[in-house]
Amino acid sequence: MSVQETARVREVGLRDGLQMVHAMLDAGRKLEWCRRELAAGIADIEVTAFVPAKVVPQFADAEEVARGALAMPGLRPAALVPNLRGARRALEIGLKKIDFVLSASNEHNLRNVRRPTEESIEDFGRIKAWRDEHGAGVELGVGVATAFGCTIAGRVEERRVLRIVERLLALGADEITIADTVGYADPGQVDALMRQVLALAGKVPVACHFHDTRGLGLANVYAAVQAGVRIFDASLAGLGGCPFAPNATGNIDTEDCVFLLESLGLRTGADIDALLELRRSVESWLPGEPFAGAIARAGLPKTFRLSAGAGPLQRQG
Amino acid sequence: MSVQETARVREVGLRDGLQMVHAMLDAGRKLEWCRRELAAGIADIEVTAFVPAKVVPQFADAEEVARGALAMPGLRPAALVPNLRGARRALEIGLKKIDFVLSASNEHNLRNVRRPTEESIEDFGRIKAWRDEHGAGVELGVGVATAFGCTIAGRVEERRVLRIVERLLALGADEITIADTVGYADPGQVDALMRQVLALAGKVPVACHFHDTRGLGLANVYAAVQAGVRIFDASLAGLGGCPFAPNATGNIDTEDCVFLLESLGLRTGADIDALLELRRSVESWLPGEPFAGAIARAGLPKTFRLSAGAGPLQRQG
Repeated sequence: MSVQETARVREVGLRDGLQMVHAMLDAGRKLEWCRRELAAGIADIEVTAFVPAKVVPQFADAEEVARGALAMPGLRPAALVPNLRGARRALEIGLKKIDFVLSASNEHNLRNVRRPTEESIEDFGRIKAWRDEHGAGVELGVGVATAFGCTIAGRVEERRVLRIVERLLALGADEITIADTVGYADPGQVDALMRQVLALAGKVPVACHFHDTRGLGLANVYAAVQAGVRIFDASLAGLGGCPFAPNATGNIDTEDCVFLLESLGLRTGADIDALLELRRSVESWLPGEPFAGAIARAGLPKTFRLSAGAGPLQRQG
Repeated sequence: MSVQETARVREVGLRDGLQMVHAMLDAGRKLEWCRRELAAGIADIEVTAFVPAKVVPQFADAEEVARGALAMPGLRPAALVPNLRGARRALEIGLKKIDFVLSASNEHNLRNVRRPTEESIEDFGRIKAWRDEHGAGVELGVGVATAFGCTIAGRVEERRVLRIVERLLALGADEITIADTVGYADPGQVDALMRQVLALAGKVPVACHFHDTRGLGLANVYAAVQAGVRIFDASLAGLGGCPFAPNATGNIDTEDCVFLLESLGLRTGADIDALLELRRSVESWLPGEPFAGAIARAGLPKTFRLSAGAGPLQRQG
């Protein structure tokens, strides 16, 4: 792997992380989080979700947060939208990146958005049409949730995931994110699925979204890197548990993900020390929440050197 | 990877784990641990270390534990020895497997056994000669510690590790274990080093010993599996911290390691539920110690099925 290769870590803690916590974080702190994470070198941040406030009260301030994020030069804020209504709200505010999500597991999709996966695919087509008419230049990503298995339905067939990806690409998705929503993936599965997804996607960017529920989050990142994936969702301090597994850790940890990618010689542009400092603030804002992450606990190896800006050498001599 | 392929998980919790804990575990419980882990399908257990009792009081009962373990049909007990004196004690008791250890980092070796690595290699030659004369049929393994870096010296050159491995093979090692003693390894490093070690070792078995200090333990197992390694050290409940990193987790967790290997289609012969039950007992025996492990926290995926005895199918339909 060339030492000049890059990888992108996208922060989803403000969305996937915060939707799980008990405390309400006010818009000011959400924006401080964005500002400091941007300063730490992470410019792709999913800042909020356009969902009904009665479903997820944490995102009642979605407009305010999105507007604040749009005012930060250099930040590339995105928002999650579950339907056309959410997409319209996000477009009206001026976001240039919208992440639609559906579940590969029909049962999970029914539970999550009360319609079969097939209808969500049609919803995506409608969002795409709306975007084409009203949102020139807005990037439309799609996440395929429960792509490696489902706590409700169990196994999710690989060919089903691939068919859904094909449909979404045909409908004009600008980016595909394959998500292990419930932490069921193993690296062998990741390697096999991601190679096929990348082959289908061609020039359309492909990302992975892993949870560390069963300890394989970073092993899955490594498998995906080997398959060719270079974009990863992660959550600062590992925020974001799983509603179906109490005490289980949530998204892979941003700092640890950066550490792994940089160790593999992939430049992320992120400053781990600055991320750890921000992490300490986030921990202080959310007392009593479970946090995860190994680098925060153990520190960086003496042999580690960030590739970003440090020239081609990965490890200290 | 063929679904019929096997992998071996060796329990090191009774040695690498217990040497770090504060509570003294009596010989009866150590032997109960062995008995129940054997019943759970793990037959390779490093049961103790033959070191001076004043250095590690936990192993003052080494003879008693080794004798008790030798009396269990089907168990393959091993013991760690740091020098010829320890090897003689282990041989006299009748152990059929002895694990010598030295550090690739000269500084670490000096700190650990008060002699340079070179002298430890000579010690290994003396142990080998003694074994040849007095211990026919006794297997002599060697662990190369700090093979991926050192908290004292920093970087450890790959070529230095390979030269040490060559020397040990030439002296007649029956098995080589490459150890990331301080949790510095990343999967790229593991892949590169292990392919070369396996090539040098030829038919001599090669194992890996990883710590999860920085969250990459299982990613490193996956990288080693891909390189061709099929023997892994692990510690029940992730027991065994690192003296140089407070609050850091220790050895990779036995249950999680079995989960990963089985997920990859490698038969370990281990029963995860029985391991989790034993784990609960070990936790009750060692109050206040830090434990790790994701499967113990989150449970197995609905889609998971042990390959051992369950036929060729890895995942439930």
